[in-house]
Amino acid sequence: MDLKEKARQKLTERGVTIDDMAILVLDAQLKYNPSLTMDACKEAIESVLAKREVIHTILTGIALDEATEKNQLEPEINKIILDDTPLYGIDEILALSIVNIYGTIALTNFGYLDKVKPGIVGKIDKLGKDSIECHTFLDDIVSAIIAAAMSRIAHH
Amino acid sequence: MDLKEKARQKLTERGVTIDDMAILVLDAQLKYNPSLTMDACKEAIESVLAKREVIHTILTGIALDEATEKNQLEPEINKIILDDTPLYGIDEILALSIVNIYGTIALTNFGYLDKVKPGIVGKIDKLGKDSIECHTFLDDIVSAIIAAAMSRIAHH
Amino acid sequence: MDLKEKARQKLTERGVTIDDMAILVLDAQLKYNPSLTMDACKEAIESVLAKREVIHTILTGIALDEATEKNQLEPEINKIILDDTPLYGIDEILALSIVNIYGTIALTNFGYLDKVKPGIVGKIDKLGKDSIECHTFLDDIVSAIIAAAMSRIAHH
Amino acid sequence: MDLKEKARQKLTERGVTIDDMAILVLDAQLKYNPSLTMDACKEAIESVLAKREVIHTILTGIALDEATEKNQLEPEINKIILDDTPLYGIDEILALSIVNIYGTIALTNFGYLDKVKPGIVGKIDKLGKDSIECHTFLDDIVSAIIAAAMSRIAHH
Repeated sequence: MDLKEKARQKLTERGVTIDDMAILVLDAQLKYNPSLTMDACKEAIESVLAKREVIHTILTGIALDEATEKNQLEPEINKIILDDTPLYGIDEILALSIVNIYGTIALTNFGYLDKVKPGIVGKIDKLGKDSIECHTFLDDIVSAIIAAAMSRIAHH
Repeated sequence: MDLKEKARQKLTERGVTIDDMAILVLDAQLKYNPSLTMDACKEAIESVLAKREVIHTILTGIALDEATEKNQLEPEINKIILDDTPLYGIDEILALSIVNIYGTIALTNFGYLDKVKPGIVGKIDKLGKDSIECHTFLDDIVSAIIAAAMSRIAHH
Repeated sequence: MDLKEKARQKLTERGVTIDDMAILVLDAQLKYNPSLTMDACKEAIESVLAKREVIHTILTGIALDEATEKNQLEPEINKIILDDTPLYGIDEILALSIVNIYGTIALTNFGYLDKVKPGIVGKIDKLGKDSIECHTFLDDIVSAIIAAAMSRIAHH
Repeated sequence: MDLKEKARQKLTERGVTIDDMAILVLDAQLKYNPSLTMDACKEAIESVLAKREVIHTILTGIALDEATEKNQLEPEINKIILDDTPLYGIDEILALSIVNIYGTIALTNFGYLDKVKPGIVGKIDKLGKDSIECHTFLDDIVSAIIAAAMSRIAHH
């Protein structure tokens, strides 16, 4: 399987679909562009998911979430990541590898999504907070992909 | 006058007080810390305003706003800054010089403030959008100072 | 004149040509790719110069350099920018608006160029340091454009 | 053991001492400050190592290196991290969580150290490249700590 396919498969396995992300792009951008379609938003998400940096970030972040779920890390850091301690910020930093390459519109949208946690972002955050699964890195990565797609649409 | 005093004087001249910024810190952080006081928020703002990088950013950003108001820049860039064109992102980048040094909590709060524009942030943004004054750089700098103070409080 | 043409005209006016930048790309990347040509490096520079964020950064940074040369800013900040005080870092921050969108290869190359100052970077830095002209922002912007072009070549 | 102690213990276990890092700070900063001592450089490194963000980054980055050595990640990403593929940039991004909070002097020094790889940076990079151990994240984290200490000294 090529890397791009692998990254998409991991997102699906962890409970995130293209549609989950595209609908948040549509919700946010319709007010700037009333003729925007769900198809255009899905295309924007697909385009973000094809970038090498994005693929690397997805695979690395989910690897950390999964290793944490399996208790494979040293106890101190395993506990910090599992609890998503409020002052732990490495998850947001990892997401910057996606956000940065899409410019400042992506950056401010990322900050907003990370605070407000709409739709799929809130859903996976809650699964993590309830300790059913570990999504400490995934929720920030998903916010970053959505923010990047928003920026892409604004620039086109 | 020393640089720190100069930066504060320029903020006041351009319509931004310590209290305007501290109240937004209090509003946002009370839910995490119900015993937080306005005095503690003002102290956090003062501490941010004492940092060299912050002083340099304030003086540079307001200098650009003022030069734009006076029509001193080449017509193409003067117009872009005056209109605060949606795809112009140099104002957010400048604000990163403040946000970055306060970690990821500052970063996500900055994104949120930049989208929602509460209180003083919205007030100066509106003065700019109505073309009464040019605040293209100032509104982002004020958001960054507030976000930095929030991060400082969260970390203490 | 469109914005892209304007940005290129300003670079030329301030003493920087496409060839000056492309030669540094070639020098640095030949060891990774011995068949790289000067034409490919010029093309990479041209591609960077066509990006909206890059155009905005060039026009804003040179506007600050020129306003400083003309003594149009408040005396405190005019002196800091004119002297390119070692602890003034807003010039590097502005350059990040270019570097960030080209990923981490651009980031590390930018840091290297900013320290070593080869070719055109050193030439304009020296003109600035000798107080003949003010190039506080321009030398970082030129380093950022070169670093971005290097990253583009590495990724293709 | 508290987190700060744990981070230092992991650095030692992975072959990095305070002295290894302090000597590179001294080497680089002596030309700006001829009376700088090794003790002052060690103190600067210690101060960087006491920051929460730095501790989190060290523990997360080494956890990824160790999980990779043990082949615990999915094969695709395990191979990318083990090989430190040139276009994999998540290691540099992680290091930004340290570099960003120390301002632009840290940023440019980080880029320089990452290219030139002096002393301990080159030593652990070589151990990684020779596939004896996996130090894909560690070499960037060590560069970031050194760059942060350099910035701290320049600002004091």
